[in-house]
Amino acid sequence: MEFRIEKDTMGDVKVPADKLWGAQTERSRNNFKIGPAASMPLEVVYGFAYLKKAAAYTNCELGVLSTEKRDLIAAVCDEILDGKHDDQFPLVIWQTGSGTQSNMNVNEVIANRAHQLAGKVIGEGEKTIQPNDDVNKSQSSNDTFPTGMHIAAYKKVVETTIPGVIKLRNTLNDKAIAFKEVVKIGRTHLMDATPLTLGQEFSGYVAQLDYGLKALENTLPHLSEVALGGTAVGTGLNTPKGYDVLVAKYISEFTGKPFVTAPNKFEALAAHDAIVETHGALKQLAVSLNKIGNDIRMMASGPRSGIGEITIPANEPGSSIMPGKVNPTQCEALTMVCAQVMGNDVAVSIGGMQGHYELNVYKPMMAANLLQSAQLIGDACMSFEANCASGIEPNHEVIKQLLNNSLMLVTALNTKIGYYKAAEIANTAHKNGTTLKTEAVNLGYVTAEDYDEWVKPEDMVGSLK
Amino acid sequence: MEFRIEKDTMGDVKVPADKLWGAQTERSRNNFKIGPAASMPLEVVYGFAYLKKAAAYTNCELGVLSTEKRDLIAAVCDEILDGKHDDQFPLVIWQTGSGTQSNMNVNEVIANRAHQLAGKVIGEGEKTIQPNDDVNKSQSSNDTFPTGMHIAAYKKVVETTIPGVIKLRNTLNDKAIAFKEVVKIGRTHLMDATPLTLGQEFSGYVAQLDYGLKALENTLPHLSEVALGGTAVGTGLNTPKGYDVLVAKYISEFTGKPFVTAPNKFEALAAHDAIVETHGALKQLAVSLNKIGNDIRMMASGPRSGIGEITIPANEPGSSIMPGKVNPTQCEALTMVCAQVMGNDVAVSIGGMQGHYELNVYKPMMAANLLQSAQLIGDACMSFEANCASGIEPNHEVIKQLLNNSLMLVTALNTKIGYYKAAEIANTAHKNGTTLKTEAVNLGYVTAEDYDEWVKPEDMVGSLK
Amino acid sequence: MEFRIEKDTMGDVKVPADKLWGAQTERSRNNFKIGPAASMPLEVVYGFAYLKKAAAYTNCELGVLSTEKRDLIAAVCDEILDGKHDDQFPLVIWQTGSGTQSNMNVNEVIANRAHQLAGKVIGEGEKTIQPNDDVNKSQSSNDTFPTGMHIAAYKKVVETTIPGVIKLRNTLNDKAIAFKEVVKIGRTHLMDATPLTLGQEFSGYVAQLDYGLKALENTLPHLSEVALGGTAVGTGLNTPKGYDVLVAKYISEFTGKPFVTAPNKFEALAAHDAIVETHGALKQLAVSLNKIGNDIRMMASGPRSGIGEITIPANEPGSSIMPGKVNPTQCEALTMVCAQVMGNDVAVSIGGMQGHYELNVYKPMMAANLLQSAQLIGDACMSFEANCASGIEPNHEVIKQLLNNSLMLVTALNTKIGYYKAAEIANTAHKNGTTLKTEAVNLGYVTAEDYDEWVKPEDMVGSLK
Amino acid sequence: MEFRIEKDTMGDVKVPADKLWGAQTERSRNNFKIGPAASMPLEVVYGFAYLKKAAAYTNCELGVLSTEKRDLIAAVCDEILDGKHDDQFPLVIWQTGSGTQSNMNVNEVIANRAHQLAGKVIGEGEKTIQPNDDVNKSQSSNDTFPTGMHIAAYKKVVETTIPGVIKLRNTLNDKAIAFKEVVKIGRTHLMDATPLTLGQEFSGYVAQLDYGLKALENTLPHLSEVALGGTAVGTGLNTPKGYDVLVAKYISEFTGKPFVTAPNKFEALAAHDAIVETHGALKQLAVSLNKIGNDIRMMASGPRSGIGEITIPANEPGSSIMPGKVNPTQCEALTMVCAQVMGNDVAVSIGGMQGHYELNVYKPMMAANLLQSAQLIGDACMSFEANCASGIEPNHEVIKQLLNNSLMLVTALNTKIGYYKAAEIANTAHKNGTTLKTEAVNLGYVTAEDYDEWVKPEDMVGSLK
Repeated sequence: MEFRIEKDTMGDVKVPADKLWGAQTERSRNNFKIGPAASMPLEVVYGFAYLKKAAAYTNCELGVLSTEKRDLIAAVCDEILDGKHDDQFPLVIWQTGSGTQSNMNVNEVIANRAHQLAGKVIGEGEKTIQPNDDVNKSQSSNDTFPTGMHIAAYKKVVETTIPGVIKLRNTLNDKAIAFKEVVKIGRTHLMDATPLTLGQEFSGYVAQLDYGLKALENTLPHLSEVALGGTAVGTGLNTPKGYDVLVAKYISEFTGKPFVTAPNKFEALAAHDAIVETHGALKQLAVSLNKIGNDIRMMASGPRSGIGEITIPANEPGSSIMPGKVNPTQCEALTMVCAQVMGNDVAVSIGGMQGHYELNVYKPMMAANLLQSAQLIGDACMSFEANCASGIEPNHEVIKQLLNNSLMLVTALNTKIGYYKAAEIANTAHKNGTTLKTEAVNLGYVTAEDYDEWVKPEDMVGSLK
Repeated sequence: MEFRIEKDTMGDVKVPADKLWGAQTERSRNNFKIGPAASMPLEVVYGFAYLKKAAAYTNCELGVLSTEKRDLIAAVCDEILDGKHDDQFPLVIWQTGSGTQSNMNVNEVIANRAHQLAGKVIGEGEKTIQPNDDVNKSQSSNDTFPTGMHIAAYKKVVETTIPGVIKLRNTLNDKAIAFKEVVKIGRTHLMDATPLTLGQEFSGYVAQLDYGLKALENTLPHLSEVALGGTAVGTGLNTPKGYDVLVAKYISEFTGKPFVTAPNKFEALAAHDAIVETHGALKQLAVSLNKIGNDIRMMASGPRSGIGEITIPANEPGSSIMPGKVNPTQCEALTMVCAQVMGNDVAVSIGGMQGHYELNVYKPMMAANLLQSAQLIGDACMSFEANCASGIEPNHEVIKQLLNNSLMLVTALNTKIGYYKAAEIANTAHKNGTTLKTEAVNLGYVTAEDYDEWVKPEDMVGSLK
Repeated sequence: MEFRIEKDTMGDVKVPADKLWGAQTERSRNNFKIGPAASMPLEVVYGFAYLKKAAAYTNCELGVLSTEKRDLIAAVCDEILDGKHDDQFPLVIWQTGSGTQSNMNVNEVIANRAHQLAGKVIGEGEKTIQPNDDVNKSQSSNDTFPTGMHIAAYKKVVETTIPGVIKLRNTLNDKAIAFKEVVKIGRTHLMDATPLTLGQEFSGYVAQLDYGLKALENTLPHLSEVALGGTAVGTGLNTPKGYDVLVAKYISEFTGKPFVTAPNKFEALAAHDAIVETHGALKQLAVSLNKIGNDIRMMASGPRSGIGEITIPANEPGSSIMPGKVNPTQCEALTMVCAQVMGNDVAVSIGGMQGHYELNVYKPMMAANLLQSAQLIGDACMSFEANCASGIEPNHEVIKQLLNNSLMLVTALNTKIGYYKAAEIANTAHKNGTTLKTEAVNLGYVTAEDYDEWVKPEDMVGSLK
Repeated sequence: MEFRIEKDTMGDVKVPADKLWGAQTERSRNNFKIGPAASMPLEVVYGFAYLKKAAAYTNCELGVLSTEKRDLIAAVCDEILDGKHDDQFPLVIWQTGSGTQSNMNVNEVIANRAHQLAGKVIGEGEKTIQPNDDVNKSQSSNDTFPTGMHIAAYKKVVETTIPGVIKLRNTLNDKAIAFKEVVKIGRTHLMDATPLTLGQEFSGYVAQLDYGLKALENTLPHLSEVALGGTAVGTGLNTPKGYDVLVAKYISEFTGKPFVTAPNKFEALAAHDAIVETHGALKQLAVSLNKIGNDIRMMASGPRSGIGEITIPANEPGSSIMPGKVNPTQCEALTMVCAQVMGNDVAVSIGGMQGHYELNVYKPMMAANLLQSAQLIGDACMSFEANCASGIEPNHEVIKQLLNNSLMLVTALNTKIGYYKAAEIANTAHKNGTTLKTEAVNLGYVTAEDYDEWVKPEDMVGSLK
């Protein structure tokens, strides 16, 4: 492999000749061989590209950067955002906790690529653009990394998570409407209970996701605040007047998302409660989705020796040994995602709780977990919707049979003959393996006519039907 | 011990003669000997007292309960709320997951006590009030327990947690204002960084708590929804028309809190995402408080061989072996609480994710954890405020000395001579154990006059001061 | 209320006249009003009683404490262990993280009670025994609290957790043997699969608990190490030569448990990985028990519209609204315990990860969580065993019916006609709602005779039966 | 792109012509677009390669597979293990929870590649080797996936985690020995305490890692058990007699690791407590490593305004804005890894607790988390050792100064003049800002000579030095 020499304040470093990065990136590559290479999410890199461009525009507008430099920086940022340099960001999550080297990775790539765009050869002549003094002007890793991760997280949540959840929510709502006349046995404690409609059951899932979406949206204002302008410790040292507000305006313009400057930069550097807050809402969604996925696989269980009240699409052969088997694989993928999100929430919270003084140094880990959770929930909802939820159909015959067998229809008699006599009927029927009606009449508590009049499953599902 | 015989649908049970509870409570006492007795939080019992009274009023108003019965029920509920029967609720958290027996415990105590209030002797004659048919009328454990736990949780959050956090927030804010001129060294990565004021540092804590309070308040609408009216599976079977809205109105009136009926009762029984959501916000506060408590104990460390920038009150002898030792004990209590809340969040989430069909059966565990977390955060904030935060004072001499020693003041030169030369100055001073000024001048990068003009810590803390 | 004056190094404190505690306990009561009073587990107090007695014997044997003082101290310790002073320990978990005040609480109670035993009146005359110089001799909170919590934890694990788990394990094993001929349908992905016996299913539960017990026992050697002798920072300052080994010997003798001195006292004070390790094993048991409890409630679901393969004891009326309902309440209590233990594990781990320098200051929280988890698992296993597991019976009729319906019996044909043809048979039978045999013959892949010969559920359960 | 047609029991599927996989892999690729492609760890694929080869050898030896087929299968497995087909495994973690499609992915790749090795063209003619009937013979996804993940996990733990931890442990032990004469101030509650040596402090870290290694090794026997031979539900249906023991022997031979057949196959399929158990030990190591990393960064803090007792290597410029800054970046990477492992532990445990009946369907998620944690801990220890721990040096001057300032040296006087008088000396010196000796003499409690004789830091560090 060929190398060129790059320098930083600690001296010379050999860098692969075909790479755009510089000395600090290379040091980090060598010093942090932890887990697979390039694990730092590209979304964070793109977040940096937005903010570097915004900083260049702001610095220029405020008179501390030339138009030429601004345009060169912006041009490289646009290339990065076009995905043209994805292989120039080799660093890992498990580096310095401020993400300093990833900030420098971006600075170095921009500086070297700008040198190329200016018609020069990397490594020859003075750099057209300096990574620290130009690309990083009016910035610190300490305010850029939080900004980059807020941009990445916000976009991921609104572009992937929320659309995925809404897509699933709408399909479940369609099912709730479609199934609103399907009276079925209810189950509490997994045991037979009074009836409800399948539509009502699904309406509960819709309500869960609606609450989850609301909870997630509640976290967006905090997440939309960016730290940029705080620089090293939150005081905004080395930034021109008005910088923080203006740079947030540019970020907002370039991303098309409503980012604003964080009102308190000390909080924005030293704590990442916004990440904790948003991840908390993702965890709530995971809790809800787990319930939904679990219910659906239990209702679809069988085909002959389970519950079997619904059928779900058969997407693949279910077993490498049992021929003809079909499994609730989408439920399984979904609930595995839920378990992962629950774990990620702990990782994020532990990171969040351990900031020290002016800086939280768990940034890359927190960002990576949030991005993973947001992606997985969005994707899993999409996959579950397309390959499972949209194809759910009631198994009317089974539903009817299970409903009519139920001893809990006796509850309808409570208001007529009291809880104790009703219980006696149910217990007797259970013991004798007979029907409620038989025992109700035998015990002399109701007439057959009254029984038929009073115990109608379809009347037991309420005005809520 | 003397006993009397109580009955339920399964037969006779011997109950201690001096107790107000009945057969089902006694069965539960015997069947669930798990952990200490009476672990079911009294707050949940009080929540039940509110809702039983509200249900009696609603049932009466809707014509299904006599005024006499209503008044007897209400009278006992008021006694319970006055704390007169605290020893009549012996059940544990670790019972049926719907809290059925705690619902029955309340029903039985109300019925037996009402019998007494009606001038009769418990165990003699037919019960004046029936536990199931009267006290529990238009109700199920499945909608009362969630209602009771929402009442308990909402009250705890607004009466204990929020006031505690606000009290601490305000004191920290007073400190932020009081310390706004105290310039000190910043620290990032625990390492010396550029200066800020002690007030700015504290303003970050205030911002954290403000975000946390906002996040907590965002969860209250969901928590203010009550399940009552859903009965067994959410359909509202056996409730009179209009019951759910009216009973929520009465709960709201009796508690003085803005409770409303849950728009979707299926969700309200089968999922407890509202508990998950509120606990998520408590966890966020724990994350914030941990950062604050940690910072304060590090800044107060010493007295001679630590950081020592602030002093905190000495409330007790710190050591049983080291004479004269004073420790940051309030920080320790606070951060232990934070760790507990982090753990409780996992327990609550695991409970929340495992509802099955029409019912979540982790209710008592979820309620108990939320109540504990809400109490501990509120109490710990109060304790920390009174016994630590309010007494924090800057140690001006130490602060000044640590500030002036710092090599990171060199950052002020970045915009004058560039990052690389500034770094050379800092590195040289570090290597030689000299001052920045000495090396800046020696290296010929700035004059002594310019140095004094450019490197002023008090000018480095920004307009944010 | 009447008071007397007690003193410590910070001055005078008014203490309720009828209490045995002294100045530092009273300070702590006032300074830490966090959660319910007296939340510090009594087990820890008893652990202290053992170690204080052991320290007195050791100090005496090594010549630094008089026999008279030794005997007075030992006498009070014995009273404490007899439960005579349970109300003298009012402090909370949420105090200083070293448990210093609980150590002093014990020291003060011993000193004052010893004064009484010496025939004097508390508060009059010089103390017969000094809390710090005599009771705490050769000790520090920093080594006593870890010792007390190891004693408490070890005893709880071996006296409550392990016996509870073994009791349940043995009953499940009895069931595994009893059910070894009961051929039933297997289920994977909740879907019908090839058969196994109910006994085989239960043998899996037994294996889980055996692994869990082994894992728990693996942690006992670390837990049996006591920190005593390390004093303030682990160096053993102010202890006589040979003290650490001898005091561990006395602790071992008094408790009847194999405690030994920790080989590295620095670890024993600054880290509580032994607590983390033991709790990790408790968490593993919770994971196993959750699986078992879940399976049993699913298999017992119904009675008519669920799986219904087994019946479990009906211990209480299951519903306040649905007459005759019986629920798997023991499964619910058990799985709620599992969720709590999972949460406690996070709390314990967070506490464990945050020791600083020579001391971990999350001791009381870690101890309390471990004791709770150990108690709950032990109790819940006992309760589950007595009230559920021991009464489990197969529902032979249902089992047979579900087995014979199954399409997965086709798997037996794989080795005869290949996976693809077998799948075709199963898929056709599923589509047509017919039997495997019908379609196997119709498709011409096997004769009726071969089918009957090859597809025998009882031959499909292996030599493992 | 060009395609060929592959078939499975559900029909035809178009597969990219240049890929070795078949119909089921392609279905899974399309049905599970969740997160980045090919997230299923290659270690699991390699685990499969070992077991497929072992199964082929076993099947051949037991007379159910020809030698030709065995050799073809084995040849492809060897190619996979040589990394020649890494791009043929495109599936994600978030698929069916049994990993069925990853099993089929391996089966299909082996079958198609074997066809090539047999000199044929993929997609032409009957397959030389059938994916289900030959490659998967005597197997099910349900026993192969757990086997594959145990192989992968065991190898990762013994080849990456343990060597990494041992490497760090040994270096810390070298430091403990090197620093055994360096007397320094101890700190408890972050506050000045009695002295110890820096070597003693490091010996505590060594002890932590020794306990962690022991705990991890304790889990290996469970992890070394393989499920293979249980097939679909644990009964071993469709396996020849003796298969399970023999196949484990071959796995052991091919991997060089002591794998054995699981004594209870029902547990081995339905529960993954072995994964939970091993991950619990990894979590314990994370707890320990977090303490170590935290201590070291606090001790290295400064360089001028922190603790500064040790220096750590300066590996990269620490700040993009603060020139000359050096940060404890390895500590940060390490502690971020610890937070991740703590989160992963929750994900693994949640997966483990939710097995249903005969199968746990959280296998890929559990495997992926365990592999990540094991890798990260091993790598992070290596990185921390090489780039931080090995370069730690005491800063003797600072250590001496902080030691001599300390008021806690007064503890040495306890045994001479009692705790109360010693406390008075310390408090007075603290109040007056003087030395202990000055006040000790002034108060008349000791002579200057006695003071010098009694208060010697180097005598306070015990025989433990």
